[in-house]
Amino acid sequence: MNLAATLHYLDLLGTVVFAMTGLLAASRKQLDLFGAIVIAMVTAVGGGTLRDLILDQPVFWLSENIYIYVVVISTLFLFFYARFRSLPTRLLLFLDALGLAVFSVIGAQKAMALGLSDPIVIMTGVMTGVVGGVIRDVLMGEVPLIFRKEIYATASFVGISLLLLMVGWGVSVDVSVIVSILVIFILRAWAVQFNIGLPVFQPVNTQD
Amino acid sequence: MNLAATLHYLDLLGTVVFAMTGLLAASRKQLDLFGAIVIAMVTAVGGGTLRDLILDQPVFWLSENIYIYVVVISTLFLFFYARFRSLPTRLLLFLDALGLAVFSVIGAQKAMALGLSDPIVIMTGVMTGVVGGVIRDVLMGEVPLIFRKEIYATASFVGISLLLLMVGWGVSVDVSVIVSILVIFILRAWAVQFNIGLPVFQPVNTQD
Amino acid sequence: MNLAATLHYLDLLGTVVFAMTGLLAASRKQLDLFGAIVIAMVTAVGGGTLRDLILDQPVFWLSENIYIYVVVISTLFLFFYARFRSLPTRLLLFLDALGLAVFSVIGAQKAMALGLSDPIVIMTGVMTGVVGGVIRDVLMGEVPLIFRKEIYATASFVGISLLLLMVGWGVSVDVSVIVSILVIFILRAWAVQFNIGLPVFQPVNTQD
Repeated sequence: MNLAATLHYLDLLGTVVFAMTGLLAASRKQLDLFGAIVIAMVTAVGGGTLRDLILDQPVFWLSENIYIYVVVISTLFLFFYARFRSLPTRLLLFLDALGLAVFSVIGAQKAMALGLSDPIVIMTGVMTGVVGGVIRDVLMGEVPLIFRKEIYATASFVGISLLLLMVGWGVSVDVSVIVSILVIFILRAWAVQFNIGLPVFQPVNTQD
Repeated sequence: MNLAATLHYLDLLGTVVFAMTGLLAASRKQLDLFGAIVIAMVTAVGGGTLRDLILDQPVFWLSENIYIYVVVISTLFLFFYARFRSLPTRLLLFLDALGLAVFSVIGAQKAMALGLSDPIVIMTGVMTGVVGGVIRDVLMGEVPLIFRKEIYATASFVGISLLLLMVGWGVSVDVSVIVSILVIFILRAWAVQFNIGLPVFQPVNTQD
Repeated sequence: MNLAATLHYLDLLGTVVFAMTGLLAASRKQLDLFGAIVIAMVTAVGGGTLRDLILDQPVFWLSENIYIYVVVISTLFLFFYARFRSLPTRLLLFLDALGLAVFSVIGAQKAMALGLSDPIVIMTGVMTGVVGGVIRDVLMGEVPLIFRKEIYATASFVGISLLLLMVGWGVSVDVSVIVSILVIFILRAWAVQFNIGLPVFQPVNTQD
């Protein structure tokens, strides 16, 4: 399987998992079915949409219905499944970590393919990875995951930097992509599991 | 009157009513005149702006000053009117229903004119209809209307699907447009009036 | 020094001060280093990014790494500086006033250069000036500065209108730009200092 195909499947996987995090967030607010689909959709396609707008590329879901179908079907499935089985809400954090990893690397890849410079590649990748979740959390009136204490954007940054380094060293793109995705996922999942955070911003004292 | 002209007038009507909902929301937070105009503007043009960005079309208000004038004038009028007469805040919900109906159908029409597929037309239409109000509510620190219990995005979805079906059946576009707008408005207004909602997402139990 | 160069330096200055307001806002929420950089980045480039998307121009930071470097470096500096020295949080409001002034005028300039009409120039300028700060405040879960009681968007509106008038009267663009920036900054700083506000929207009575 070539890289383009692999990335496409990973992209669909990321879409499904982010849609599920959207639906799980919606479940805590007792949204109705359509409200839940809207949240799932925004979470799943928000990051990639902003990426495409900024890179001045055609928005990815306009020409491929599969993204919309995937969100609607997985939302419907989970919506009805949840009436009979309990949902592990903690799973939300791990699914979110997987979505973060996949979308960050795909976003970075897309910017690299346009020949953009490294800082822009990093920024585009981080943005693609985090924006969907940020919109989800803002719409649900919660503090965005990205701003809570554990490592989040940092994982995305580390993984994309690694991707750039590996490609620069001549490692095959396929391998670099897979390794970066794993690194981001593992870093973030480990931070979730053990509540790992970076030092926070602590001014010595603030005068007013 | 041909369809293009009708849609243009409906678009201006939607702009006015969404601007008014923005202003009414602002009134509850005691914003000053300019804050109120900003909220009114964002509510009125937010959905269409995002639609045009995603469809890669020129943003509609860039070439037509009339939209900005209409928002400013209706905001100023209502701002001063409110000093002498009481404003029926419940009216906000019905104006919002009318804006939702008009903008959803105009958004769908614009996507249809570009030859996009049905799921994309639905998504574009719903987005055009709901985004302005969502931004308004997020900026005002309130739970977006769309995520409260009564039917909201659902009304937009039903109306746009009906539009697609009617056009597919060979009904004239003019009639289809008018009928869809009425259906969305009536569905949403009825939900507001009688507090009608869809079943909410109720997981049997959540483990953590 | 010609106008283009002056505007470029002012733009970098605005980027730095908005990044600092983002970081200061982040400090109150105890974000970690990367969360802080993300907030600083969004605050600094948010307004200009939306401006470029709407004007259908290439997004400014895509081709100039300097913007990203400036944000990262000033954030890092302030982050570590704050461990040893106290940060005057009130300064946030004055830095924000400077950013508002610079970005409003640069946004207006960019729209004028495209030959857009006066109302669009005003709207684009106000948007460029206020959007970064609005996103910052929404992400931090605070009521956006723009919607608090003191003059804010009004200062931007007055300054841009003055810019249009002066250019119309034949005053040199350089002088007009500098004067407008000063007017916006002084108006806003004066409102902050003395708590000056416009009359708020006060309906006589609201029925429900």
